[in-house]
Amino acid sequence: MLMSIILTGDRPTGKLHLGHYVGSLKSRVELQEKHEQYVMIADLQAMTDNNADIISTNILEVMKDYISIGLNPDKTTFLLQSAIPELTELTFYYMNLVTLGRLERNPTVKTEIQQKNYENSLPMGFLCYPVSQAADITIFQADFVPVGNDQIPMIEQTNEIVRKFSATYGEGIVKEAKAVLSNTQRLVGIDGKAKASKSLGNAIILSDSEEEIRRKVFEMYTDPNHIHVSDPGKVEGNVVFEYLDAFYEDKNHLEDLKAHYAKGGLGDVKLKKLLNQTLQDFIAPIRERRNALNDADMKNILLSGTKKAREVAVRTMKNVRSAMKINFFEQH
Amino acid sequence: MLMSIILTGDRPTGKLHLGHYVGSLKSRVELQEKHEQYVMIADLQAMTDNNADIISTNILEVMKDYISIGLNPDKTTFLLQSAIPELTELTFYYMNLVTLGRLERNPTVKTEIQQKNYENSLPMGFLCYPVSQAADITIFQADFVPVGNDQIPMIEQTNEIVRKFSATYGEGIVKEAKAVLSNTQRLVGIDGKAKASKSLGNAIILSDSEEEIRRKVFEMYTDPNHIHVSDPGKVEGNVVFEYLDAFYEDKNHLEDLKAHYAKGGLGDVKLKKLLNQTLQDFIAPIRERRNALNDADMKNILLSGTKKAREVAVRTMKNVRSAMKINFFEQH
Repeated sequence: MLMSIILTGDRPTGKLHLGHYVGSLKSRVELQEKHEQYVMIADLQAMTDNNADIISTNILEVMKDYISIGLNPDKTTFLLQSAIPELTELTFYYMNLVTLGRLERNPTVKTEIQQKNYENSLPMGFLCYPVSQAADITIFQADFVPVGNDQIPMIEQTNEIVRKFSATYGEGIVKEAKAVLSNTQRLVGIDGKAKASKSLGNAIILSDSEEEIRRKVFEMYTDPNHIHVSDPGKVEGNVVFEYLDAFYEDKNHLEDLKAHYAKGGLGDVKLKKLLNQTLQDFIAPIRERRNALNDADMKNILLSGTKKAREVAVRTMKNVRSAMKINFFEQH
Repeated sequence: MLMSIILTGDRPTGKLHLGHYVGSLKSRVELQEKHEQYVMIADLQAMTDNNADIISTNILEVMKDYISIGLNPDKTTFLLQSAIPELTELTFYYMNLVTLGRLERNPTVKTEIQQKNYENSLPMGFLCYPVSQAADITIFQADFVPVGNDQIPMIEQTNEIVRKFSATYGEGIVKEAKAVLSNTQRLVGIDGKAKASKSLGNAIILSDSEEEIRRKVFEMYTDPNHIHVSDPGKVEGNVVFEYLDAFYEDKNHLEDLKAHYAKGGLGDVKLKKLLNQTLQDFIAPIRERRNALNDADMKNILLSGTKKAREVAVRTMKNVRSAMKINFFEQH
């Protein structure tokens, strides 16, 4: 049986948090059992808008997060984007297959350009990162790419490039990939205002201490009109319930709690204590595994995965160059 | 004594012609005596707007042109752009240092975009070719780049990228280059309408046969009002005189001819016979050398030059990656 190939990954711009867990890490732990999964640490992509020191510091931290939440190097191939220069080469070739107009219309890029206030100082590397992503996905011949809703245009862009490549240079060299929607909602930040994000300081980090987790849970946004315990409370938009939805396993009990809270008589403190305990129970074994990990082992795992992945990349590029007839010294 | 490094080259989109000789090849033959000269066959750049078959067919033809006009592989390093993937890698990194606005304002690119009628279908690879040129120039640590007037903005663009790189990642890794203006004018086409260009079919190719040269000389645009031999004729804009200026060595005699033609009494046929003889004498030894060349030797010269050039490129990239802190496995 041929296993499907999955490509996924993260930008190493900070330690991973519960939002990552809910949005992607959890499903990766399942996916590695049935598929050939590549997890890429996208340090080159991070360089479009991040400091090199931050990036290189976080590569091993992210590796520790991966291993401590249950990704298994025997089942998942970890790779470091910058150590596979073939990715930059394929990006270069793909650039002839994409127009400026098409990139400027890419909805994901458009949104991010607005968020970052680039206006007239938009770096080409940023504008072109969908092209770089197309190279990431296709060089490993990925069948599936797990994404959030907002990333679907990126996969469409990739597949457009693939079709253009195939029409120009021949079929079967690179292939289209399917977006797999992550089955869980994004986790909101503890402030309830946006999605959990390290840069916004509103996320519970997988490697937070017991005390930090407790502090963040007790800072969580609930219902500002729920002043007295006896007041009826709002469940929707209540961060504590959103986190309980994601992490509390006794779903029947959780429904009872929601009903009770809505009716009045259930205090925030009691609820936050329950969530705190739930998260502590969830994170404690992750923290324990994480503390047992060392840098040298992480580096070795990443290095050996990168070597394996690079062999695949080199093989794809050999075919790409041959199809494009830029393998002059081999063909003449 | 440290020799200066010169980078120059051509897109392998057709055999070279007298316009190339006057504009660049002639000076390269002189430059190779005093400098370390790299001549790059820019097949990747040609791919932004040319067919792969045309390009791969012309690589060895251009090599034959180089050798037959007197470029010496012991003195000049020939290299094939596509065989040095480090160039695509450096281009990728430079993309973070250039904004979309800056590339759109590049006068050379602007003109070429208009010429090619790209409008809304501008390929990113085309828009980004100044970034690719910056990689070409800097990866070989070039001090000088011989260019025509219209290419000066490309060198300015390169130097801007270099300054941005140095400010971001550190000084002395890549360096600025100086534009050297070719000392001869561009050669007009035989139709007098534009510069000589293979695609316009108005150029005398270095490997044209005796008969083709003769035909093209006798087709040349002169002075449409110079109907009778006795009529006064216009020297300015007269293609025959422009070619004589470039190739006829007895300059005193040429001045006499111009005066005679202006006054009246000197026929176009007589003048064209003189030019034909001049060009036949110039091209005959080139053709003879060219006929003695074989593909295998050309390939070997290009391969060994490319290997040498690639060593330089790899060395530069090692420093670039280290400065950018994307040499993770070496630094940790």
